Amino acid sequence: MAVYTDVGDEELEAFMADYGLGEILTCKGIAEGVENSNFLVTTTEGHFILTLYEKRVNVDDLPFFLDLMSHLAAGGVPSPVPVADRAGRVLRELNGRPAALISFLAGMSPKRIQPEHCAELGAGLAFLHLAGADFPKTRPNGLGVSSWRGVLETALPRADELMPGLSGEVEAELDFLEANWPRGLSGGVIHADLFPDNAFFLGGRLSGVIDFYFACNDLIAYDIAVCMNAWCFEADTAFNATKARRLLTGYRNIRNVESEELEAMPILNRGAAMRFLATRLHDWFHGADGFVTPKNPMEYWEKLKFHRRVKGPGAYGLD
Amino acid sequence: MAVYTDVGDEELEAFMADYGLGEILTCKGIAEGVENSNFLVTTTEGHFILTLYEKRVNVDDLPFFLDLMSHLAAGGVPSPVPVADRAGRVLRELNGRPAALISFLAGMSPKRIQPEHCAELGAGLAFLHLAGADFPKTRPNGLGVSSWRGVLETALPRADELMPGLSGEVEAELDFLEANWPRGLSGGVIHADLFPDNAFFLGGRLSGVIDFYFACNDLIAYDIAVCMNAWCFEADTAFNATKARRLLTGYRNIRNVESEELEAMPILNRGAAMRFLATRLHDWFHGADGFVTPKNPMEYWEKLKFHRRVKGPGAYGLD
Repeated sequence: MAVYTDVGDEELEAFMADYGLGEILTCKGIAEGVENSNFLVTTTEGHFILTLYEKRVNVDDLPFFLDLMSHLAAGGVPSPVPVADRAGRVLRELNGRPAALISFLAGMSPKRIQPEHCAELGAGLAFLHLAGADFPKTRPNGLGVSSWRGVLETALPRADELMPGLSGEVEAELDFLEANWPRGLSGGVIHADLFPDNAFFLGGRLSGVIDFYFACNDLIAYDIAVCMNAWCFEADTAFNATKARRLLTGYRNIRNVESEELEAMPILNRGAAMRFLATRLHDWFHGADGFVTPKNPMEYWEKLKFHRRVKGPGAYGLD
Repeated sequence: MAVYTDVGDEELEAFMADYGLGEILTCKGIAEGVENSNFLVTTTEGHFILTLYEKRVNVDDLPFFLDLMSHLAAGGVPSPVPVADRAGRVLRELNGRPAALISFLAGMSPKRIQPEHCAELGAGLAFLHLAGADFPKTRPNGLGVSSWRGVLETALPRADELMPGLSGEVEAELDFLEANWPRGLSGGVIHADLFPDNAFFLGGRLSGVIDFYFACNDLIAYDIAVCMNAWCFEADTAFNATKARRLLTGYRNIRNVESEELEAMPILNRGAAMRFLATRLHDWFHGADGFVTPKNPMEYWEKLKFHRRVKGPGAYGLD
């Protein structure tokens, strides 16, 4: 959560003039997202989020992300919509960085997750998968199963500093995941990072899904696994089967889950835990960028261990 | 610019319920001020700034700051107004920290200062001094002339790392300032930190003065000196006499400046430069707190040297 690039008032006024959205009343750097600089811009016409894309985002991917947001919003998903300027451009430049003006979504991210949040989130995720089904662009998952060993390359030799034996355990898990990763499950557009920070609620209802900058094409059920890891564990890493059941039930009320997908949930959950363990281990030893406090990788090692002990999808409150 | 303390949605809802300001639509951590955590809270009734006071602010000073803001706003200064809850409290507690809800001011801080900004700022500062004249509470300036040597105690022995000879030069300057600091000039409530970051403009007019957490009683003309240091130098530390003249003229259109105050401007400007040199040197060697990138102390050494070369108030565009 940081603002990396500052925007001058004169530059902002020149930039905003191309949109015809009235007079700027205020512009505040906001602590939202860890990858980019975000500003809440209020004009006489309303509220907008101005995003400046920092180095970690590949510029070539931006059309995929921005078009996807528009596509999902048109399909009923409460995702932000990039605003086009008078010349029809959504991707522009400000302070030497790629920049986009995006619609503002009301709502707050839940800090203490309740089962009701999980039910809403599950339904929202299903709507996202349905709406994404006819999105024409594709983007491979740069953080999918084939990437994790590479992400861990420099961190793994030091992993034992966190816990003796961790590097060997993680290597064995990588071997297992690569050899047994499910094939033949339905693929499609996934969010891939739908953590509570990226979901807004208003009056108990899901009012916003944001931060599409990891969105890609991968197994649809893997996206459910990412959410189960992010939403269904307590702070002490105890698994909450009630939350998982509500998430899945909420999802299945909207979109069918195949029996093969249910059967694969344990390994998909192990994979999703590995994905966040891998990037957190990398950031832990590489200090992210000095702005962001690295998140504890061991949280995801604990989650991964839980999924390894699971005998079948019933452990997730599934039937 | 950082958010140190995060606020949960449930805690925020309970806190805001005491104000009767409608339903919360959103709450964004904003990058405003370096001392506290600030959130822009939007409810169905409007926009508010929620401030959580972090360690660097003395809790016992908060009633002075909050009451001063109300007092100045009532006197026509565009300062934020603390909002009282239904029980009449303005100073409350949230997440174990002192907290206050404050009215939202539209406008943006200028990044590239124009002479017109300085004229507006000067007038606003004069209004602030006039409105503060009958404020009943007092607070000594913890960063006044008698404090600088103490602030520098641990940094001065290392100052030569920045520039050979700096520690000796600064000590000699401290000797001079302590021996020659003006006596008998008008005192009153001053802002003491009115940098461009703390001033908002809208349509070319000063629309907000914020961050009163250094406000105190000291020489009124010293506040002008702080502003002259903060607003009237270019990025390359060249002094811009046009900006200084506009600042002073704007001020004098609203409030008289005594000839003794004009005569004292060179030493007051040296003192104001020393005040920021001192805290910046301290933060440089003590790493502030890991969140905030320390600001370059040498900027204020250059400004101080300019003021030392000044023969009289005429150098500031004064007559």
